[in-house]
Amino acid sequence: MTKKTTPTKVAFNGRPGAWSEAAAIAFSGLGTQTSSCRSPAEVLRTVEEGKADRGIVAVEHSLTGSVHQNYDLLLDHQLQIVGEIFFPIAHCLVAHPGAKLASIGRIYSHPHALEQCRTYLGRLDGVSLRLETDTGGAVARIKRRGLMNAAAIASERAAEIYDMKVLARNVEDPPANVTRFLLLGRDTPKPPVRRAKTSIVFAVKDLTRHFFSCLSLFALREIPLSKVESRPVRGRTNQLLFYLDADTSSVDTDLEEALAQLREIAPWVRVLGCYTRGKRIKMK
Amino acid sequence: MTKKTTPTKVAFNGRPGAWSEAAAIAFSGLGTQTSSCRSPAEVLRTVEEGKADRGIVAVEHSLTGSVHQNYDLLLDHQLQIVGEIFFPIAHCLVAHPGAKLASIGRIYSHPHALEQCRTYLGRLDGVSLRLETDTGGAVARIKRRGLMNAAAIASERAAEIYDMKVLARNVEDPPANVTRFLLLGRDTPKPPVRRAKTSIVFAVKDLTRHFFSCLSLFALREIPLSKVESRPVRGRTNQLLFYLDADTSSVDTDLEEALAQLREIAPWVRVLGCYTRGKRIKMK
Repeated sequence: MTKKTTPTKVAFNGRPGAWSEAAAIAFSGLGTQTSSCRSPAEVLRTVEEGKADRGIVAVEHSLTGSVHQNYDLLLDHQLQIVGEIFFPIAHCLVAHPGAKLASIGRIYSHPHALEQCRTYLGRLDGVSLRLETDTGGAVARIKRRGLMNAAAIASERAAEIYDMKVLARNVEDPPANVTRFLLLGRDTPKPPVRRAKTSIVFAVKDLTRHFFSCLSLFALREIPLSKVESRPVRGRTNQLLFYLDADTSSVDTDLEEALAQLREIAPWVRVLGCYTRGKRIKMK
Repeated sequence: MTKKTTPTKVAFNGRPGAWSEAAAIAFSGLGTQTSSCRSPAEVLRTVEEGKADRGIVAVEHSLTGSVHQNYDLLLDHQLQIVGEIFFPIAHCLVAHPGAKLASIGRIYSHPHALEQCRTYLGRLDGVSLRLETDTGGAVARIKRRGLMNAAAIASERAAEIYDMKVLARNVEDPPANVTRFLLLGRDTPKPPVRRAKTSIVFAVKDLTRHFFSCLSLFALREIPLSKVESRPVRGRTNQLLFYLDADTSSVDTDLEEALAQLREIAPWVRVLGCYTRGKRIKMK
């Protein structure tokens, strides 16, 4: 017996062909309905207002680091992290079918994508870079305007969607760039039993003794951590936020104890979600 | 007796009127010669090749976090941090003298600047955002093209330089946004005696026991830290880099001992520089 289910609707930032749309499909399957948003903030609002079941946002690039703005967005909303995916980003140089590499004078893309292709772009003489809010939108602009002397850094899928040509493949800096995306939802799903990860954020009063005490709650119980990162608290120079990913379930007794003690000593603690650790998707 | 000195030449990223140029002048005085570069990477190369005495790069925004790309650049070069400055960023909406706020349809700026003005921009109906590589360049583009329906997010100084009008002031999100800039040089100056800060970067083998051991070297000696931040090591998924700022001099015995032990247990350690802790510049 097959159960008939409504396809999940996932909100993403950008135009069709954006990397986050591809990641949403890789995570939720080919039948996934996607909903284009103009910004990561709109992604979260769309889910909060019930116009989509899930939202997907990039939070870490292996080449360029954490996307702090998106981490901050998590704090502005009451959504839960319900999943993660590590998605390989193989950038292409995309242009009109009639365009030639030698005549490309301008390259459009998202700032993170341009940053990830620093070496390749540095070798192209005399091209100017133009920043776009997403890679899909960069291809859409060149297509719409019929720009023959411009190209975009985007996915191969974006080239297909807009009937454009791939001038060069894998133009990102080595090693292979992997982006970590988080899936967000309104519900709090049951914590997974195996391969669980729990994302926590807490404030520390100072980076010397207090931070060390907070960290010791995890270290002394040998709770494996996969992320430790500080962020200044908006408007409070005497406090710092710490993002911590523990590779265990939120119902693991050790983590429960560590969190209980953390709540006693830290001015502020929030569990952002407990979910299955993301698989690393292989490229086709 | 006054000593006659050649003015320091400071390389910065962007066009005249960029925030980093303003920060360079605030740090080194009004007689400072500045040298415009097309990217932060070019800033570091310019100093390395001796074409400028100092380089200035933004490394942290109080609103949007660390600029990881610029931290990574420090590792690609052998320059030393010789100073820091905390500079208040009061963004303005800048347009042609004849332009009216109601007819502005497009806003150009650096992605970080746009991010910092999220609330204000969200209130402007139907405007589209265009990203530029620096705020000075955003004003220069509008000026050059004579765009009457466009504005830039930039400094008041950029408006003056290009003979443009300020349509709105302090459009950044509250609280006041402060950017931390680092001054870089080829030389290793004598460590300051008072108000010293030492920036260190080291690799850790894992985030559980090993990271805790590394951090304990500082915590047990009560060395005050003002930054602790992790970054994945490019191409090595089993190692993480930690950036650590200690609010003391590199010749402080406690810090010397901590660093000596850190070198024994960490796979890789580098002292990025010892310099006087930055003053927070007041706005005029």
